[in-house]
Amino acid sequence: MSLRVIEGGVTAPSGFRAAGLHCGIKASGKPDLSLIVSDTPATAAGLFTLNLAKAAPVYLSQDHLASSGGRATAIITNSGCANACTGPQGVADASEMARLTASALGCREDLVLVASTGVIGVNLKMDKIRAGVPQAVSALAADGGAAAARAIMTTDPFPKEYAVEVTTEFGNFRVGGMAKGSGMIEPRMATMLGYLTTDADVDQVMLGRALTEACTYTFNAITVDGEPSTNDCVFALASGTSGVTINENLYAALVEGLRAVAHELALGIVRGGEGATKLIAITVTGAATDADAWMAARAIANSPLVKTAVHGGDPNWGRLVAAAGRSGAAFVLDGARVQIGSLVLFENGRPFDELAPTAAVYLMGKDIAIEVNLGTGGSHRATVWTCDLTAEYVKINAEYRT
Amino acid sequence: MSLRVIEGGVTAPSGFRAAGLHCGIKASGKPDLSLIVSDTPATAAGLFTLNLAKAAPVYLSQDHLASSGGRATAIITNSGCANACTGPQGVADASEMARLTASALGCREDLVLVASTGVIGVNLKMDKIRAGVPQAVSALAADGGAAAARAIMTTDPFPKEYAVEVTTEFGNFRVGGMAKGSGMIEPRMATMLGYLTTDADVDQVMLGRALTEACTYTFNAITVDGEPSTNDCVFALASGTSGVTINENLYAALVEGLRAVAHELALGIVRGGEGATKLIAITVTGAATDADAWMAARAIANSPLVKTAVHGGDPNWGRLVAAAGRSGAAFVLDGARVQIGSLVLFENGRPFDELAPTAAVYLMGKDIAIEVNLGTGGSHRATVWTCDLTAEYVKINAEYRT
Repeated sequence: MSLRVIEGGVTAPSGFRAAGLHCGIKASGKPDLSLIVSDTPATAAGLFTLNLAKAAPVYLSQDHLASSGGRATAIITNSGCANACTGPQGVADASEMARLTASALGCREDLVLVASTGVIGVNLKMDKIRAGVPQAVSALAADGGAAAARAIMTTDPFPKEYAVEVTTEFGNFRVGGMAKGSGMIEPRMATMLGYLTTDADVDQVMLGRALTEACTYTFNAITVDGEPSTNDCVFALASGTSGVTINENLYAALVEGLRAVAHELALGIVRGGEGATKLIAITVTGAATDADAWMAARAIANSPLVKTAVHGGDPNWGRLVAAAGRSGAAFVLDGARVQIGSLVLFENGRPFDELAPTAAVYLMGKDIAIEVNLGTGGSHRATVWTCDLTAEYVKINAEYRT
Repeated sequence: MSLRVIEGGVTAPSGFRAAGLHCGIKASGKPDLSLIVSDTPATAAGLFTLNLAKAAPVYLSQDHLASSGGRATAIITNSGCANACTGPQGVADASEMARLTASALGCREDLVLVASTGVIGVNLKMDKIRAGVPQAVSALAADGGAAAARAIMTTDPFPKEYAVEVTTEFGNFRVGGMAKGSGMIEPRMATMLGYLTTDADVDQVMLGRALTEACTYTFNAITVDGEPSTNDCVFALASGTSGVTINENLYAALVEGLRAVAHELALGIVRGGEGATKLIAITVTGAATDADAWMAARAIANSPLVKTAVHGGDPNWGRLVAAAGRSGAAFVLDGARVQIGSLVLFENGRPFDELAPTAAVYLMGKDIAIEVNLGTGGSHRATVWTCDLTAEYVKINAEYRT
């Protein structure tokens, strides 16, 4: 089995078309309606936010996946409005978005999945959606992935798409994807919005299993600001048009394909995090349990003091120790070790401050690797990706609606 | 029983003297050594950080309180260096600080409590401490509280001290205090550094109980950045020189006195939080349990999206709902309510966006009250105080050591 990166995103696998256009939700005139269609009803799986203030389209897509038995023809997404905290009107609007799309495509309503992203607590401009959906269907194209990826952006500084071709002894298949960030990001079981497509032929149960596995170390291992959103969803659609059927022999290849695309998209979300200038990989080792490793890595990755220190190029390893110590994970100071890049700055209870100037030079880079050993003698580990915290993040979020 | 605010801080109650001076730890030349002395060995109690990366002076003060049976003559504090993550040398240095102070005062070593605050992972300049301690003892004065309060500051924009006189039918006593912030603040069982003094006569067990009770809704209910530090301590000393003995009849009066001083100091820490321009009281109501109320209030109070929105004067109540929904507390969206000042912006699943301009005007103030009802029908509530998140916070912490 081998992987090869190919051009494109969600339409790189065969059997998919997509479109993205401006229908009128965003005042800026930027694209705000995105449609992905599988030419044949695809096998479908979804992961959804654990936030208890779920948006209307999240409930709708969950319902549709259940009633269709894990199949889908289309995913319709608007940006510029989250359709969250919008009461019964929001539920009706999400449902109408699915109905409009189904009608324009001539498919069953429960074969349409719906997602929304943008400001919370504002109702969708349904007149714009009503005019936009038929236009999006008309614009569907086999090379429409890039347009679709642009139309799901909110504060993202760049679109995120990626695709690979997986070569196996039983034939080749492709996996493509797109995603958006870039604030309110600390996915728990899913991320803001992620879309994965494949032309492999795979049943719904196996697709769901593979999606969960692929997301654990990718979308679920990133954070921008520790804020799991109301609208997080990851969808996977499998068209089957490559003719390669995924059985237990090929399951690992499917997971690897999904993981590779999800990994790149997830890191793209962090690189494009609000105000971010650096990608920071926080690896926790020496944890007593798997849960401890994740808990400590998340605590460090969400620490504003760690994120500002990295932003300022300050190898302030004391903040890493302090964050690990208050994370809730078992922690033994005398056995702990802190490494920035390849430099060990703290070990066996002693600082090595003579290395600080070298570490400061390393922190001037864009890709930062930090490792904190919790000192318990355990062998569990976890990596969480985060970004630095900057004045630009404050500016973006202080002025988001104004 | 009644309370009256009086001038001063830790030396407002009788029986205490204090001093603060520059001994040479801070390069800036600002005060960095602080001493509080009780003329007779005082009853003493302490609350200490739950961070597992505790600093050397935290362990030392815990040991001294245990070996003295809850009595203390002095508290010696340096700022500019946390003496945390400093290994065996740090332990030896904290111990020498106590020994130097005991020797200059002519008291037992375990009657001296020690605290440090500042940069983590740097060893104390003991030559400066050795020269400074006798100077501090010479400088002790009955009106030395203000100098002592200045000498514990790090990034604090102003010193924090407060005092009250408690009038009861059995006589009057005083409670005074001082505290420092202003980053790495989310106390769990104690705060950064807090010092309370009283001239009431109270036994160690009752003083400990009263201190815990007074801190629950004050020092333990604030956050600046969700970062419980390595050096958090709150100390209470009771000189007994007022002649008023605290028994069960007067216990509530003691708690009220301690609480009043701790409340003012705690709010001062938040007002003086790094980069802060606003004090924000987050009250969560309608919680199913007490733990849920605290969990949701802390999640909202630490949300960077909420803190930046308040900073920008944006009544973005959707972020309050999103933070409550992902807090881990039971949450029912349809029953939830969000109130900013006296304005209800979301209730029964519906937004009231016509009130947003009025709410934006309210948010231009310095003291902001926000209430989020979790909608569970429960009657539990909690208030946590926080500050806004600003570009200045990022600047301070990106440049802290440079």
